[in-house]
Amino acid sequence: MGSATWGRQQRALALVSSLGADCLLTANPSTVTWLTGYSEAAEAGPDPYAVSPIALIAVGEPPTLVVAAEWVEAVAELGCAAAPCGGFTVDDMPAGEDLAAQIDSLVPGRVVATEGRFLPAIVADRLERVEASTQLTRLRETKDPDEVELIRAAIEVCDAGQAAVRAKLEPPISELELWSAAHVAMERAAGSRLAVVGDLISGPRSSGIRGDATSRTLSASDTLICDLLPRVRGYWGDSSSTLCCEPTRAVTRAWRRVRDALDRLVDAVRPGVVSGDLDSLARSWVDFPHHTGHGVGTSYHEEPRIVPGGRTVLVPGMVVALEPALYTDTFGVRLEVIVLVTDDGCDVLSTHELSL
Amino acid sequence: MGSATWGRQQRALALVSSLGADCLLTANPSTVTWLTGYSEAAEAGPDPYAVSPIALIAVGEPPTLVVAAEWVEAVAELGCAAAPCGGFTVDDMPAGEDLAAQIDSLVPGRVVATEGRFLPAIVADRLERVEASTQLTRLRETKDPDEVELIRAAIEVCDAGQAAVRAKLEPPISELELWSAAHVAMERAAGSRLAVVGDLISGPRSSGIRGDATSRTLSASDTLICDLLPRVRGYWGDSSSTLCCEPTRAVTRAWRRVRDALDRLVDAVRPGVVSGDLDSLARSWVDFPHHTGHGVGTSYHEEPRIVPGGRTVLVPGMVVALEPALYTDTFGVRLEVIVLVTDDGCDVLSTHELSL
Repeated sequence: MGSATWGRQQRALALVSSLGADCLLTANPSTVTWLTGYSEAAEAGPDPYAVSPIALIAVGEPPTLVVAAEWVEAVAELGCAAAPCGGFTVDDMPAGEDLAAQIDSLVPGRVVATEGRFLPAIVADRLERVEASTQLTRLRETKDPDEVELIRAAIEVCDAGQAAVRAKLEPPISELELWSAAHVAMERAAGSRLAVVGDLISGPRSSGIRGDATSRTLSASDTLICDLLPRVRGYWGDSSSTLCCEPTRAVTRAWRRVRDALDRLVDAVRPGVVSGDLDSLARSWVDFPHHTGHGVGTSYHEEPRIVPGGRTVLVPGMVVALEPALYTDTFGVRLEVIVLVTDDGCDVLSTHELSL
Repeated sequence: MGSATWGRQQRALALVSSLGADCLLTANPSTVTWLTGYSEAAEAGPDPYAVSPIALIAVGEPPTLVVAAEWVEAVAELGCAAAPCGGFTVDDMPAGEDLAAQIDSLVPGRVVATEGRFLPAIVADRLERVEASTQLTRLRETKDPDEVELIRAAIEVCDAGQAAVRAKLEPPISELELWSAAHVAMERAAGSRLAVVGDLISGPRSSGIRGDATSRTLSASDTLICDLLPRVRGYWGDSSSTLCCEPTRAVTRAWRRVRDALDRLVDAVRPGVVSGDLDSLARSWVDFPHHTGHGVGTSYHEEPRIVPGGRTVLVPGMVVALEPALYTDTFGVRLEVIVLVTDDGCDVLSTHELSL
């Protein structure tokens, strides 16, 4: 990973320089992973033993990660220097002051580019800062080849989850049982525990767009929207399908319209297209209240967002999830694949079954 | 939940006053849940659509939560006012400036008690702050009756996970399959998706204290340490067991020593006991490199920590996980139950099987 992340670190340094700063210091977990390959367990919120990892990128120095003491070895394997702070120990829990002092010693007297939404106040108090959030978001929009491979791996895990739900869907069965089948299949495919986000909503719930699996039991005529987003080695996959064992004509008709919209959207993706125009196209075919699509990478929803008025011009290397949909008062249909913008169009990276 | 959290809000206000502040503003998710009952999905790190929830507690005002627009209703159900910021929308993603302005309008010209390790720098920049982390940690040490009930519910979910692993343990089987069985059983018991932390380490890995399940396959003579921590409605459970299908004499002997240490520790827990003394007692019976125990509540590891030199005096209402252990070069044994300190001793809240 070390050499693969080098290019991203250099782009970050060029940004730092353009902002008149001396270094970049970020606690945004998505940016930390993007810059270093380091990602932390995400299942439980903040680590009680330590602060969230903080990455420091400065000219002429190896990238440095402030992490709990037990992750020093993992950090070294990524080609980064480790500045341990806190950790799994019988000593006192880390106080904010320890962290502030640690950061102080790393960036004495420097002007620091940061992402202020993520940096802990106790660290920021002593720093001379310039905000770099918007620019970093832009840098992260276009993926390097190694990032595309990581996203591909995460999409393969999505595919395994989607296949498991399809295999398991024999009503009566609860949403939670279907979710479990997907979760287990995705962790099996990855060979490790995973952070997973998703929607699993059936029957009338599927008209509500979002929602965790519940103990609701499906009947044969219920539509099921299954939207699975696993994080594999720091990068997210994303995928949606809509399933129904005994669809009414209305459901079949809606599915056909969404499927058609998705196909036409994929056809429309190419370098030079403006995100807002792509969004308008989708809405000329089907009507839905959410985004038409979004970038995927070290976060599961990022730029380029395909939304009304979006002004991002697509370029090769962008990875975009497209998810046109239709929601009625009684059911919903959503289909989603991830595409990679290429020199003359796009490649569909998702391979899961899209049929009803 | 509204009335149950009222007492905690009043204690927070007394603290605010003692610090010379006008209000409390915290983005520490554990404190937010403690104060309001509100807890967010924890499986995926920061919400890309919004900032982490921020709670504001001020005299003469309803508690206020800054949350994404889609959670306003959930916030109202908790008896709190909602200050929406960002959310699931086709509009621009929330910038830090929006949040800073939002907070500004909520606490104009006030002195604000905060937890600086969790407050975003971009919010903190405009505030006159005093640090309240240490004192809030202390307030959270002793649980209200409604919190004990929530922890009991989470422990029941632990018990379901532990039972599932025990039922499934027929080598050859992989750690990941056992983990999946636990995960599925816990979500089924809770009737919802859960944030889950844990260790599932077998054979030589069990001497390493911590670790996620991997694709390693267990043999009949392998020891298995299974440490499960689910979060149910904002409160964490915790539980450990050590299993082995065909234990050697050394493993059986180690298990007996740890079991004996756990029983004697439970006998020793009562009001007035100092945490460090409890820790010394445990280490006089068995030897292990980690904490002897820790508080459990809206975070899965909090005060009172049972560690060397600990100076916390136990009082009724504290909820403590006790986890004595023994680790050799080739295997480990750890047993863990949660106890509630009562007026004259403690109640063991965990009911999972502790046998090998």
